[in-house]
Amino acid sequence: MVEAVENQSPHHVVIVGGGFGGLYAAKALSGAPVHVTLVDKRNFHLFQPLLYQVATGTLSPADISSPLRAVLSDSKNTKVLMGEVKDIDPQQRKVILSGEELIYDTLIVATGVSHFYFGNEHWATVAPGLKTVEDALEMRRRIFMAFEAAEKETNPEKRRAWLTFAIIGGGPTGVELAGAIAELAYSTLKRDFRNIDTAEAKILLLEGMDRILPPYAPELSAKAEASLQRLGVTVQTKTLVTNIADNIVTTKQGDKIEQIPARTTLWAAGIKASPMGKVLAERTGAAIDRVGRVIVESDLSISGHPNIFVVGDLASFSHQNEKPLPGVAPVAMQEGEYVANLIKQRIAGYSMAPFQYVDRGSMAVIGRNAAVVDLGYVKFSGLFAWLTWVFVHIYFLIEFDNKLIVMLQWGWNYWTRKRGARLITGDEVIGKVGIDANGDYYVPLKSKETVEV
Amino acid sequence: MVEAVENQSPHHVVIVGGGFGGLYAAKALSGAPVHVTLVDKRNFHLFQPLLYQVATGTLSPADISSPLRAVLSDSKNTKVLMGEVKDIDPQQRKVILSGEELIYDTLIVATGVSHFYFGNEHWATVAPGLKTVEDALEMRRRIFMAFEAAEKETNPEKRRAWLTFAIIGGGPTGVELAGAIAELAYSTLKRDFRNIDTAEAKILLLEGMDRILPPYAPELSAKAEASLQRLGVTVQTKTLVTNIADNIVTTKQGDKIEQIPARTTLWAAGIKASPMGKVLAERTGAAIDRVGRVIVESDLSISGHPNIFVVGDLASFSHQNEKPLPGVAPVAMQEGEYVANLIKQRIAGYSMAPFQYVDRGSMAVIGRNAAVVDLGYVKFSGLFAWLTWVFVHIYFLIEFDNKLIVMLQWGWNYWTRKRGARLITGDEVIGKVGIDANGDYYVPLKSKETVEV
Repeated sequence: MVEAVENQSPHHVVIVGGGFGGLYAAKALSGAPVHVTLVDKRNFHLFQPLLYQVATGTLSPADISSPLRAVLSDSKNTKVLMGEVKDIDPQQRKVILSGEELIYDTLIVATGVSHFYFGNEHWATVAPGLKTVEDALEMRRRIFMAFEAAEKETNPEKRRAWLTFAIIGGGPTGVELAGAIAELAYSTLKRDFRNIDTAEAKILLLEGMDRILPPYAPELSAKAEASLQRLGVTVQTKTLVTNIADNIVTTKQGDKIEQIPARTTLWAAGIKASPMGKVLAERTGAAIDRVGRVIVESDLSISGHPNIFVVGDLASFSHQNEKPLPGVAPVAMQEGEYVANLIKQRIAGYSMAPFQYVDRGSMAVIGRNAAVVDLGYVKFSGLFAWLTWVFVHIYFLIEFDNKLIVMLQWGWNYWTRKRGARLITGDEVIGKVGIDANGDYYVPLKSKETVEV
Repeated sequence: MVEAVENQSPHHVVIVGGGFGGLYAAKALSGAPVHVTLVDKRNFHLFQPLLYQVATGTLSPADISSPLRAVLSDSKNTKVLMGEVKDIDPQQRKVILSGEELIYDTLIVATGVSHFYFGNEHWATVAPGLKTVEDALEMRRRIFMAFEAAEKETNPEKRRAWLTFAIIGGGPTGVELAGAIAELAYSTLKRDFRNIDTAEAKILLLEGMDRILPPYAPELSAKAEASLQRLGVTVQTKTLVTNIADNIVTTKQGDKIEQIPARTTLWAAGIKASPMGKVLAERTGAAIDRVGRVIVESDLSISGHPNIFVVGDLASFSHQNEKPLPGVAPVAMQEGEYVANLIKQRIAGYSMAPFQYVDRGSMAVIGRNAAVVDLGYVKFSGLFAWLTWVFVHIYFLIEFDNKLIVMLQWGWNYWTRKRGARLITGDEVIGKVGIDANGDYYVPLKSKETVEV
């Protein structure tokens, strides 16, 4: 089964990871005098900025995903390989997968990051994060299951816990999740239940810093907080989560310790590098930062390894500003395209100026008609910001064949305030509200091991 | 936690199952002087006739599902309860769920049927059937994973096995699956792979009877077979499957025994009653047929239990023709509405004539532009039949808020021949092509227990 790639000439570029960084590198190399192999564990590219809409029942996974083979079907010099990279060997220019090996001339690593629980990894089962399609479906399952359990629960106190949603982390993902859940509880689901008033739901957004959306300008953080409060979200800043256990979130605000009974806790706080970061560090001696991201040269290569590049969230690039570039899609796209061009230039015998990120601004959506946009030279919020947000996301989805559907789905949901994708799915066990020994309702955790029915 | 329904008057109708039978009964009882409780394991109604489009990557689960609470949110006399019925007690008019009980005045059971492997239940893991959303995603995973494995496989013989799809059962589901997979292999995926030619895929439709679509008129079976063959499907009738093991399907055609290496085997053959059939038989003494369906009176009630009704696939109604009505959506809808009206009449002090199914015809879709339609008085096939099929399905989806999206998705897929929902999803383990001890590729089975990676 083990086979090296049959043909070493032309120049072979191996790209690991089909996210924004890897995919944009591959697209930019389409038609170049190189042979490209894009390796990904999954068979699709995920438009992650919209993943929170899957988690909250507005869109389906397929609406924000595109099969990598379909996106690259016209790039005849590009092969897509579904597989997982286990190791690399820079001396022999080898990428080692389970069952096969690839010999590269140039390697681009774009495997991104995953959640980080700051040393409390056991929180992962009780407070799921949002990185993959499966993560989103798990969040969706817990959110909607919580309303179902509340509808069954007769004890007011327990019912309150089912209707309390704690979102940990006030970055864009946390803000977007909180806004979407508020809209669910206060408008979408309002008329669907008979025993409970979903408007009694409590949505908490917990942020450790002194304001939400810390990377943004302070006035936008303030605007975002105001819009969230208008939507009914309780925003608590300077609040650290010290424990999550037995459906109770323990927080520390200054010296104020609080214990919040919440049956649904969602994680939008920390990130850590994907395993390839460690592999690169060990095999190339690359320096990594505190969350394991690979510190790259001004051309995104690894020091001492001019033919190995790291792009996207996994790369820590701090040649432009003192603090590294943020882990957002635009950075990954530009980095991927830069490295693709650099490879083309090299082959043509030219060199390239260092990578420069062009910041077209950042934005976060809070809810229907509400968003904040920071274009650097101008900052605004409200409906116009929301329209900008919609436009930009549609524009980038245009890469993919499903943008039309997504646009219409949005329009449809916008006018009807309906959310068609409110399915609770999963296997027989996790697809139901369980009853424990005390006759209390519970929502089974994802892993079967932890379920006793 | 155990609570009987708080209020016994007005008349309480408990409906078990939110499929076509149960949902149409609930809708027909909306506004009637009764209190309705609809119990379902899932929180959504599934438009099952289109499930094969999820299994083959055209539609997403949410496109063909509607949250039961949303569909019934305007039926103020109706409560939706997410739960599973364990037992019933006709003497005390009780429906027993895990954790609660309901007291009914009238009970409607509409829990449908599931797959039946004719005593070879162990085939379930190797030849999944198509009843639930999870079933469809599992089929989708296996179908697209098979192409991925073929792309990796270098041994021509093994590669052929990966590109062989055996569909067992020549009813509408089998025909629709075979047609859709043929379109995938011969058109949609054609340009997406580099090592394999997907057009080399072999799609087998295996039927035990002497023709496919046995319930239809012979000339339509012939037309359907011809269209399937034009699409590239190999149709084998009078063919019994005697074994499925080690990726080999053993068939018997007359005395001809054949062993077909196929890595993907899909089950569209037998059905058996859902567990409620057995419960009803034990508790009410109802007679059941050979697949466990409950034999009902001419008013769809159970003999000796005028306040217990069975509708939809679970009911065996043979008062109209010698053979029982087929297990199709239109029968379930009409039965559900009939019982709802009967209840209203009874409360008003009137009686109803026996149930009469109005057969508006049956149809099956074979592929893009190809379908067969049998309206009884007229039979036709081809593009016009396909348009009729599309129209009828859209018409019935109109019950649901997502019909617009589905229509557009179809139009989109129709013109682009693209399939956006080609995602291979599942957990870390099953989401990948595995490598076994001999270094051979394999697609992990659904249940983790059976996976050694």
